[in-house]
Amino acid sequence: MVRPRSVAIIGASDDATRIGGRPIAYMQRQGFAGTILPVNPNRATVQGLPAFAAVTALPQTPDVAIVAVPGEAAVQAVDDLGAKGCRAAIVFTAGFAEVDEAGQAMQDRLVAAARKHRMRLLGPNCLGLFNAAVNFYPMFSLSFEQGWPLPGNIGIASQSGAYGTHVFAVSRQRGIGTPVCVTTGNESDVSLGEVIGWMAQAPEVEVICAYAEGIRESARFTAALDLARRNRKPVVLMKVGRSELGGHAAKSHTASIAGDDTITQAVLDEFGVVRANTTEQMLDIAYAATKRIYPVRNTMGVITVSGGAGVLISDAAEAMGVPMPPLPEASQAHLKSLISFCAPRNPVDCTAQAVNQTELFPQFLETTAEAGGYGSMLVFLTQTGGSTTMAPKLRPYLKQARETFADRLWVLSAIASADKVKAYEEDGYLVFEDPTRAVAAIEAMGRFGAAFAAPPAEEIVVPDVTLPATTPTEAEGKRILAKAGVPAVPEKACVSADEAVAAAESFGFPVVAKILSPDILHKSEIGGVILDLADAASVRAAHATLLQRAAERAPGARIEGVLIAKQIKGAVEMALGVARDPVFGPVAMVGLGGVFIEILKDVSFRRCPFDEAEAERMIRSLKGFPLLDGARGRPKADVKALAGALAALSRFAAGAGERLLSVDVNPLLVLPEGQGAFAADAVIEVEEGQ
Amino acid sequence: MVRPRSVAIIGASDDATRIGGRPIAYMQRQGFAGTILPVNPNRATVQGLPAFAAVTALPQTPDVAIVAVPGEAAVQAVDDLGAKGCRAAIVFTAGFAEVDEAGQAMQDRLVAAARKHRMRLLGPNCLGLFNAAVNFYPMFSLSFEQGWPLPGNIGIASQSGAYGTHVFAVSRQRGIGTPVCVTTGNESDVSLGEVIGWMAQAPEVEVICAYAEGIRESARFTAALDLARRNRKPVVLMKVGRSELGGHAAKSHTASIAGDDTITQAVLDEFGVVRANTTEQMLDIAYAATKRIYPVRNTMGVITVSGGAGVLISDAAEAMGVPMPPLPEASQAHLKSLISFCAPRNPVDCTAQAVNQTELFPQFLETTAEAGGYGSMLVFLTQTGGSTTMAPKLRPYLKQARETFADRLWVLSAIASADKVKAYEEDGYLVFEDPTRAVAAIEAMGRFGAAFAAPPAEEIVVPDVTLPATTPTEAEGKRILAKAGVPAVPEKACVSADEAVAAAESFGFPVVAKILSPDILHKSEIGGVILDLADAASVRAAHATLLQRAAERAPGARIEGVLIAKQIKGAVEMALGVARDPVFGPVAMVGLGGVFIEILKDVSFRRCPFDEAEAERMIRSLKGFPLLDGARGRPKADVKALAGALAALSRFAAGAGERLLSVDVNPLLVLPEGQGAFAADAVIEVEEGQ
Repeated sequence: MVRPRSVAIIGASDDATRIGGRPIAYMQRQGFAGTILPVNPNRATVQGLPAFAAVTALPQTPDVAIVAVPGEAAVQAVDDLGAKGCRAAIVFTAGFAEVDEAGQAMQDRLVAAARKHRMRLLGPNCLGLFNAAVNFYPMFSLSFEQGWPLPGNIGIASQSGAYGTHVFAVSRQRGIGTPVCVTTGNESDVSLGEVIGWMAQAPEVEVICAYAEGIRESARFTAALDLARRNRKPVVLMKVGRSELGGHAAKSHTASIAGDDTITQAVLDEFGVVRANTTEQMLDIAYAATKRIYPVRNTMGVITVSGGAGVLISDAAEAMGVPMPPLPEASQAHLKSLISFCAPRNPVDCTAQAVNQTELFPQFLETTAEAGGYGSMLVFLTQTGGSTTMAPKLRPYLKQARETFADRLWVLSAIASADKVKAYEEDGYLVFEDPTRAVAAIEAMGRFGAAFAAPPAEEIVVPDVTLPATTPTEAEGKRILAKAGVPAVPEKACVSADEAVAAAESFGFPVVAKILSPDILHKSEIGGVILDLADAASVRAAHATLLQRAAERAPGARIEGVLIAKQIKGAVEMALGVARDPVFGPVAMVGLGGVFIEILKDVSFRRCPFDEAEAERMIRSLKGFPLLDGARGRPKADVKALAGALAALSRFAAGAGERLLSVDVNPLLVLPEGQGAFAADAVIEVEEGQ
Repeated sequence: MVRPRSVAIIGASDDATRIGGRPIAYMQRQGFAGTILPVNPNRATVQGLPAFAAVTALPQTPDVAIVAVPGEAAVQAVDDLGAKGCRAAIVFTAGFAEVDEAGQAMQDRLVAAARKHRMRLLGPNCLGLFNAAVNFYPMFSLSFEQGWPLPGNIGIASQSGAYGTHVFAVSRQRGIGTPVCVTTGNESDVSLGEVIGWMAQAPEVEVICAYAEGIRESARFTAALDLARRNRKPVVLMKVGRSELGGHAAKSHTASIAGDDTITQAVLDEFGVVRANTTEQMLDIAYAATKRIYPVRNTMGVITVSGGAGVLISDAAEAMGVPMPPLPEASQAHLKSLISFCAPRNPVDCTAQAVNQTELFPQFLETTAEAGGYGSMLVFLTQTGGSTTMAPKLRPYLKQARETFADRLWVLSAIASADKVKAYEEDGYLVFEDPTRAVAAIEAMGRFGAAFAAPPAEEIVVPDVTLPATTPTEAEGKRILAKAGVPAVPEKACVSADEAVAAAESFGFPVVAKILSPDILHKSEIGGVILDLADAASVRAAHATLLQRAAERAPGARIEGVLIAKQIKGAVEMALGVARDPVFGPVAMVGLGGVFIEILKDVSFRRCPFDEAEAERMIRSLKGFPLLDGARGRPKADVKALAGALAALSRFAAGAGERLLSVDVNPLLVLPEGQGAFAADAVIEVEEGQ
């Protein structure tokens, strides 16, 4: 579909400004080497090429076909093409699933026609694609009016056609090369994930810019991200529709369901995908990635001619988490000996003096790079970098320093004309006018570096899980989870008051008593939990009270007895859970109990399964983590045990399959270090069935 | 200093590339109409002008002088200039307070010399200023090598010289006019606040861009912001040094102390100043402000040719808090009747169809503007806006729509050449390539609109407060605060166990007992608070325990008795406080007790005094506000009473003067609506003395 030897255009137009005419005009103008086969029932020639009355009349089977005829005619065209032996079609036609149910039905027929012939579809409702390497332009965008793709190594994969070409147009305007662009529209067949996967192994592409309104399927998408990471190809993704309004707009645009943004984000984090919130960010990051230098330990050294910019850059670096360790004292002293009033710590303010006394400048560059050992170097020159008098003197020094320390990412922040910028770029520099944008790009390169350097995840052994036929009671649920590696608070299901007292005495007081029924999921709503039972008499009384409340407030519920559990105090209360995402399957979450979850939505998500190290990263990413780490005079909590329980829960969920609807462990009580973490309550919901 | 008829240059150089030579060259080249008086002991002429051997030899008293001689010579020059009758000097010389204590001492002598003659100083360690309106260029920046200021209405006020001219250079590169730029350096006399204040009333300036590393004084700064707001001149401020590293760098740059960023932010919010985090943001906002349209109710209507961009813009608008209400149903139906597959809700996706059938385009523009009544209109055209075939057809419609709805802020997002952008700008459009940046600029205009439309704050009556000679006991402190309008929990200081029991019985059980001593500020540290006293016997026992603990754990402390207070349950615990900021004076804070303050730093600050409405805004801005507003099944808390206490505290702090070091009301117990809020504990710290 992207490197064909022949292409048919169904609905070909002689008018080079019409949708069915533009691709022909573009390919002819750019010199597409393959055969172009226009199909038009009313003309003998189209734009100077022999035209054919119908698909059936084509003299050869095209490698790929562009379908630019409306409605049902598009369905018919696909069927005819398939019958002819064509295996790929790019469907421009709109009016399918993005409009209404009738459109969805027509799209289903389109897909059925293609499937019948084992034919792949791009679209419908897509703008097409281009691959400048072979001058293939099956796209009806107006963008080429302002210029053709520049040489480069960035690929654009976009669900939105207009937005994909907008990114192309902005990048061309900035002088950034994007030789490949594929827009997927309604994704009736070829998905964004598949396009990313193709780019992850295509020699044309080293950096992938993707735009998504909704991820429709998980397997190809995550496999593509995994492949890209293994091939050290950074993926910058803009995923829109995160707001309520944006989600609404996405639905009527490419018929996408935006999905839960938190879970999408978790999946992106898992594969080291950097998310861009704006087009500018996306292109800044992609541009920076074209150098293919991804510092693994991404400290930043800054050399500036403006103290103010040094302060600004320091703020930005701290906010974005880019470390700026100081130069060693000896190096600072050396720089001070060159210019007494310089600020040599890092940011290194070499002051205007180093520009006036040009021979000092390289010493600042090289001392900082060498002694600081920074993964990235940011040189802030502002207008000096574009100055007709100063820049020619500084440039050779900059070039030399970069060559001497060629493994570093060298970035220049300067105000300069396009040709001066080009010259610096040829010397190996990235050039950003705005220093904050430079820092953001550097930060992203470090994230790629860390993701590419991470050892491949160990295969996680997923247990065989046999779920009960119906949603289990709390006690049963906790037994299931305990077996899976999420230990529970010592407890016993008791069928009599005597048994309850005996259990309490064996655990030691105080204990908690809870009603035990498969029909009562939320016990506290009927007063089904009684705390602080300090002696046998209280246990006995609580037993009676619970049975009475259940009879009154949940009449008809099957009562299996009363659960007696050891009451644990002084623990940190966490909530663990599993939910089933419609796209990504089982997703585990962890959060601190109480206000952290309920008011602040301070939770961390991850696809199941994952290991203990990943679980610990999730826990440490919580805003409330200090509470587990000794804040407010508490002892440090047993984070290892918590991480163990979370990872075990994730393996359980992965093994349980689709019948597992949700798990809610709340609270999980985390004791001080070395003392473990125990589920105090747990609800497992399963789909009724075998 | 900014519009002089004559200027002397002390340390004038014949070499136009030297610091003492550049201002002369610039002024001569640009045609400064006043007299230029070079002072140089070694030359008869400087750059073709007659030079003078010393300040004393000047033939006239200059309106202003540039001092570009090193160290002590600069001090001498200022003294000589003052003696000659000159009243203003711009001191380029560096090596003062930004370096070390000796430099600070020299700066003190510089200031003393100026004060002696009632002379004003800009700098030292500053780059100077320029006022293009009168071609006055007392600045040694290299920036002018790449071009002169463009006509416009933006003024730049910057503590950093290099950064101020960086902003100038970037804006010129973007075609934005900044005819005035003043850099203040070490601010030994003229401060950033004074410069902003001048711009707030100067006819040259309509929009103020300011860069600060540290605010040195409050009175002029806040007066300037107030004046700017009253004159409807927006202030965009970049305040750097908020990070630890940045604060360190600021200190060695312009000798600024960055100060508490939270408090600075509170002051900026108070005056409707919009803070920029990057240069790009600053200029985007300033550029948008040049149209001087500040929507008071800033809803946004969006017309887009790309559904994808519509989604992206919706996400950005929601994230930034710009409302995008939908078009009325009837208008949506009308647009649907024009293009059946358009998305007419808002964002209004008119699709490529409205561009192909150009005559439909104005109907989309005008229906959206008219029926939606939006304060701001964003039109996303991407490359179509720069297309050689389409743009000329669309532009007249865009122009017409803007003229018809001239009170709206019209913004275009398009990829177009510089001359096409210029043409749109002449039609009254703001043009941003990146749609997210367009939304950010629109959001800022709404903030200015709201700030300019806000009724002038009512004069707040500050009470006369007489503070005790020493830090009062808790009981005394609470009496003082109660009198000021912060009621306390019912309580009584008791000198005997009998008195304690009687007090408890009069309040009703349970009660709390606390040790009462002027020497024990933090009672809980010595076990000086006992809760949950449910009967007379417990009160009696607690009384004895507290006296014993005080004797053991705080020997020598003066014990005044035991405080008995009603114990309130089920209230929301808040913390209120007052601290003295070194620059802005007394600042009040409010936060939710517990983890919200300690882990999440979820607090709101404001300068004292302020009124109840402002107090309520502070409270509602807390992340944890839902806890006061009925979250987690609680009743709604008495926010009015809480706001009343907070406002009263702020008036008290304003009235108390500098001897009030701090107030800490923690907890303040807020009961359900209508039931009030009461201080349960309060510490007032005062400076010893009368």
